[in-house]
Amino acid sequence: MDYSPLLNELMEALRCLPGVGPKSSQRMAFHLLERDREGARRLVETLGQALDRVGRCQQCRNLSETEICALCANSSRDRSLLCIAETPADVLAVEQATHYQGMYFVLMGHLSPLDGIGPAELGLEHLEQRLADGEIQEIIVATNPTVEGEVTAHYIADLARERGIRITRIAHGVPLGGELEYIDGGTLSHAFSGRREL
Amino acid sequence: MDYSPLLNELMEALRCLPGVGPKSSQRMAFHLLERDREGARRLVETLGQALDRVGRCQQCRNLSETEICALCANSSRDRSLLCIAETPADVLAVEQATHYQGMYFVLMGHLSPLDGIGPAELGLEHLEQRLADGEIQEIIVATNPTVEGEVTAHYIADLARERGIRITRIAHGVPLGGELEYIDGGTLSHAFSGRREL
Repeated sequence: MDYSPLLNELMEALRCLPGVGPKSSQRMAFHLLERDREGARRLVETLGQALDRVGRCQQCRNLSETEICALCANSSRDRSLLCIAETPADVLAVEQATHYQGMYFVLMGHLSPLDGIGPAELGLEHLEQRLADGEIQEIIVATNPTVEGEVTAHYIADLARERGIRITRIAHGVPLGGELEYIDGGTLSHAFSGRREL
Repeated sequence: MDYSPLLNELMEALRCLPGVGPKSSQRMAFHLLERDREGARRLVETLGQALDRVGRCQQCRNLSETEICALCANSSRDRSLLCIAETPADVLAVEQATHYQGMYFVLMGHLSPLDGIGPAELGLEHLEQRLADGEIQEIIVATNPTVEGEVTAHYIADLARERGIRITRIAHGVPLGGELEYIDGGTLSHAFSGRREL
């Protein structure tokens, strides 16, 4: 139809958001312009600022607006423990759910040679430098239990073993409250082979 | 947790989007900053421009970046027909699904006295001016089949009758392809009372 070109552009631009298709981008565009111009203005400003100022922490490579993020700068955390996660969202999930008080290293992905993502893209040379410091005594690998996550975990395990650093992997199995009947076969088989003494 | 304040602000700002809660705003913020900074930059620019330049069409009150929108300016459309819709999205839906070639008037809402939305908020004095012009011969009311939409339809019907203009309402009933068994009672009862000769 004869629509305002700017409205069409806005709908197109909103589709950069994850999970937003043609229908929801249309709904969002109308909502912002009809009902929440103030919120939209704030979004423009905040997103613009975040793009300008949020980069990577020099130490853990998580998103941060300072050179060293607040978590790495926090002197009360245990510097002998290092948890390796794929994304900032994973770090957030660990922080919210556990009492972990060690440090983090964020890969921003996983090894995936077909997509051109090798050790360099994940910043693993930064990780090696940190391991060489000698401060770290245990690495907890919290990459996802996918093929790529497992491959990444094994690659990191090799780096740790070379230096004689203890390396652990978070447990995978049936989630709490889950029902065996509805669990996928892979998880169940993993839970069997990873069984522990009661 | 110790998160970058700007990241928190961004997550908060993204919640102005309809249907976006804490979990998806987090996912969106990480996605934009980690994976699609180019798309995010385009969103900032396009949304900023749209906020500055998209206003209301002087004639139909739809969203438009020109004083008179492209649809109202289109001289090949039938100026004797006026379809009244609640929102720009409704106009878009009618344009995409039907062969309607008349004009529109967009209320940007419906009468809702409790929320302080009366005839003035819906721009009904603009509508009265248009009816007074004498060009319009039929008004098709396409407000939603909700209580407020019906009240609005009746209010507009009164305006039209005062001037002897024909007024119609789009049909409501069982949707095509719908199964009676699964249709809500209100729709089914409406479909019965609105039955037509075969």
